[in-house]
Amino acid sequence: MTETAVARLAGINVGGPARIVPSGDFGLIGLAVMGQNLIMNAADHGFTVVAFNRTVEKVDKFLENEAQGKPIIGAHSVQEFVLKLKKPRRIMLLVMAGTPVDDFINALLPFVEKGDIIIDGGNSHFPDTNRRTKALAEKGIRFVGTGVSGGEEGARFGPSLMPGGNEEAWPYIKDVFQSIAAKSDGEPCCDWVGDEGAGHYVKMVHNGIEYGDMQLICEAYDIMKRGLGLSAKEMADVFEKWNKGVLDSFLIEITRDVLRFDDDDGSPLVEKILDSAGQKGTGKWTAINALDLGMPVTLIGEAVFARCLSSLKEERGRAASVLEGPKPEFSGSKEEFIDNLEQALYASKIISYCQGFMLIQNAASVYKWKLNKPSIALMWRGGCIIRSVFLKDITSAYRKNPDLENLLFDDFFNKAIHKAQPGWRDIVSKGALWGIPTPAFSTALSFYDGYRTKDLPANLLQAQRDYFGAHTFQIKPEHASEKYPEGKYNHVNWTGRGGNVSASTYQA
Amino acid sequence: MTETAVARLAGINVGGPARIVPSGDFGLIGLAVMGQNLIMNAADHGFTVVAFNRTVEKVDKFLENEAQGKPIIGAHSVQEFVLKLKKPRRIMLLVMAGTPVDDFINALLPFVEKGDIIIDGGNSHFPDTNRRTKALAEKGIRFVGTGVSGGEEGARFGPSLMPGGNEEAWPYIKDVFQSIAAKSDGEPCCDWVGDEGAGHYVKMVHNGIEYGDMQLICEAYDIMKRGLGLSAKEMADVFEKWNKGVLDSFLIEITRDVLRFDDDDGSPLVEKILDSAGQKGTGKWTAINALDLGMPVTLIGEAVFARCLSSLKEERGRAASVLEGPKPEFSGSKEEFIDNLEQALYASKIISYCQGFMLIQNAASVYKWKLNKPSIALMWRGGCIIRSVFLKDITSAYRKNPDLENLLFDDFFNKAIHKAQPGWRDIVSKGALWGIPTPAFSTALSFYDGYRTKDLPANLLQAQRDYFGAHTFQIKPEHASEKYPEGKYNHVNWTGRGGNVSASTYQA
Repeated sequence: MTETAVARLAGINVGGPARIVPSGDFGLIGLAVMGQNLIMNAADHGFTVVAFNRTVEKVDKFLENEAQGKPIIGAHSVQEFVLKLKKPRRIMLLVMAGTPVDDFINALLPFVEKGDIIIDGGNSHFPDTNRRTKALAEKGIRFVGTGVSGGEEGARFGPSLMPGGNEEAWPYIKDVFQSIAAKSDGEPCCDWVGDEGAGHYVKMVHNGIEYGDMQLICEAYDIMKRGLGLSAKEMADVFEKWNKGVLDSFLIEITRDVLRFDDDDGSPLVEKILDSAGQKGTGKWTAINALDLGMPVTLIGEAVFARCLSSLKEERGRAASVLEGPKPEFSGSKEEFIDNLEQALYASKIISYCQGFMLIQNAASVYKWKLNKPSIALMWRGGCIIRSVFLKDITSAYRKNPDLENLLFDDFFNKAIHKAQPGWRDIVSKGALWGIPTPAFSTALSFYDGYRTKDLPANLLQAQRDYFGAHTFQIKPEHASEKYPEGKYNHVNWTGRGGNVSASTYQA
Repeated sequence: MTETAVARLAGINVGGPARIVPSGDFGLIGLAVMGQNLIMNAADHGFTVVAFNRTVEKVDKFLENEAQGKPIIGAHSVQEFVLKLKKPRRIMLLVMAGTPVDDFINALLPFVEKGDIIIDGGNSHFPDTNRRTKALAEKGIRFVGTGVSGGEEGARFGPSLMPGGNEEAWPYIKDVFQSIAAKSDGEPCCDWVGDEGAGHYVKMVHNGIEYGDMQLICEAYDIMKRGLGLSAKEMADVFEKWNKGVLDSFLIEITRDVLRFDDDDGSPLVEKILDSAGQKGTGKWTAINALDLGMPVTLIGEAVFARCLSSLKEERGRAASVLEGPKPEFSGSKEEFIDNLEQALYASKIISYCQGFMLIQNAASVYKWKLNKPSIALMWRGGCIIRSVFLKDITSAYRKNPDLENLLFDDFFNKAIHKAQPGWRDIVSKGALWGIPTPAFSTALSFYDGYRTKDLPANLLQAQRDYFGAHTFQIKPEHASEKYPEGKYNHVNWTGRGGNVSASTYQA
């Protein structure tokens, strides 16, 4: 941030600092809908909240309207805002991720004191949170990066909160955070996640999983619509039924509502909505991070790519006129098919969460974060977009065994996926034969079948790489010999031609 | 690079510069196997090559052995190396990507002159090549980043070369490059690719496609092995047969050889090789770039993830003991099934190349590169790892219509994919039912079916996003109305509760 910008933010100062008596329990900067709702949520829980916004007119407007009659105080400068807070100050930013966060931190720095707490509640990328946690710790300021999920409703009445960063801050913010958070079975959907950017990281994976959940629902909808020829209302009934079973969740519930929502002409509005989805967010970050860490988070990857493909709307229109495919021919019991579809969605969802937890587990080890693993599923049980009954089962699994290597090794999920298999396989094979794309169902099944395969065909791949690029290979332990000892990197002259030099650096 | 390192490289100076008569046509730095082979290749084509290496002993060793009797001159310092070259100097680096490239550029700078050409032939990441092209152009040095593919054999007898960067350099390096490059139907597998990092970019996508091709072959092998119970020798015969048809290619050919290669005990060596593949290279870069550009390059993505999954060898072993699946039950004609498998591989390969070309096309537009599109397939026809008959057909398609929007719109490929469909769908559905993972076959089919779908289910996704996060939606043009005009971003209060403010910045 430029010096002038800092000065501009700090300079708008009404009333001398000397006259200010600190009475605020919690401060929040950024009065967009999420910020306003979080403030009102905290006020409803008895906290006196100080509100500030870069455009200060918004503060007055807020005080005169939504904030009326609540313990909410306004501030018209950063200095006034800080001085109105009790120490150690608890300051939350809900501003756009990126430069604005650094701008406000810089604007706050001249006024905050050692021990004060700055919390970033935006959708920041976790490497930024790593950096900020370290930089502010050096100045004695405790920084927290927290995931906030649940949309505007969640913010107002109970979001899922995923705080990480400087753990020294946790005892001071725990009361506010757990008070305003959603509750699930009486427990707050908020706990300390872990070091540095761990909170924002877990939120990022949450969003990736959200991409996956939504894609799975879309595939189920597409198969019912084009494969079975169901109407929007009939599909709404299916989602209503599913919402009473293993798939019981916020996203299934709103899908039911969406399918029942009619335009003025009495036809379902959803069918008129442009099928072109944006994707430049945290789903993409999750997929890129998975590639970077080398973890097979295939379902989120396919979900992001499915959005990319959807956005090529015009090109698809041209393709549709020249590329042929089969016509779905359904026969048999629709009810049974729909039950299979439910199992396919459920099994694919289990795989997606497995992959997500594999990624988080790996990230903690790579980034050397102390991570509060059982708390993660707990935080997602309520308040957030992916909230579901399902997440209670995941919480139970990790509570039973915090060192669980993989969700599929837990009894409950092991049984569930075995039960779901036949229906899942039926749906994936039907999708292929009918010409209805099921990228997420299919990749989930391929992952399951690959994961449970002791000997994958990558042996051939390693042989190919050694053949053309002398990349070397290892031998399977059970086939180790004097010629090929276990753990050794071997190179074979497959052709009888060419050199015997193995290439360690050059990759063709 | 540190000053001392520059000095160290430049300082080892044998013989006074005054006595040196420039006689070298082409200079090459880096005497690992690729560098040595490229030098000998150039020497065989009548060019006098000057060789240098950071560890100068390697220069002498090379001159005394492989280089004997060829027009190859050694240099023992960077200065000597430069002075031995005719102007404008043509200097190629074949050193590790990353810092070593910058180190050598810095070491060369005190000695080269305006108009001289520096070529980076390593596997550099294209943003580095963008940067270097610009920085060196400011100093009057013409920088080229070139992809080199074909492994050690290719380097020695004709690689595929993909040069991009400062186009001023091209007239001066064209003769060397096209002389040493592989030939396909008499044409060199080398042409100017485009601006800045375009050459390295195209090489990156080439490598991504190589990941995809290898994964497809692995899936075919796995299905034949576990689905049909074929032996390595029987599969070798299949690959030999395929190598005479539409799949005729280097990778199919070497797969045949690999499957026929026996260990000393007479059993196929490939079956003893550890099924754990590395992936931290250019395939990953391609997938990440695809995500960054928002292009659905799903097949390469799945190929990279398949390598990730393969590397979890021990965890898979544990999973195999607790996760169940069906037993493949084959009935019918094996020959017919193998023909279907050939079609599945072929169709999936067509999709992979489509996706690769979509990505390249999009990159050129995003990065504002002038790109020589028809030349790309031409460069891949010979010399490189993905060389194939298939690439001749792609070359023809782009020669016939350089503005071809998508390979699938070309008559040849349109017919090919239509013909391949039934077999392809049969294999994907069988894989799902048999429990044999086919992530690449499946994602290719899902892409095909998604791409040719005018109305994808992303309309539901957009409705969901508007429901929980007020993210807004557009209306399909054919459903535009006064209430929902075409192109407008609409928000609907789906629940009757909550605010009407649409969220433009916050994403739940």
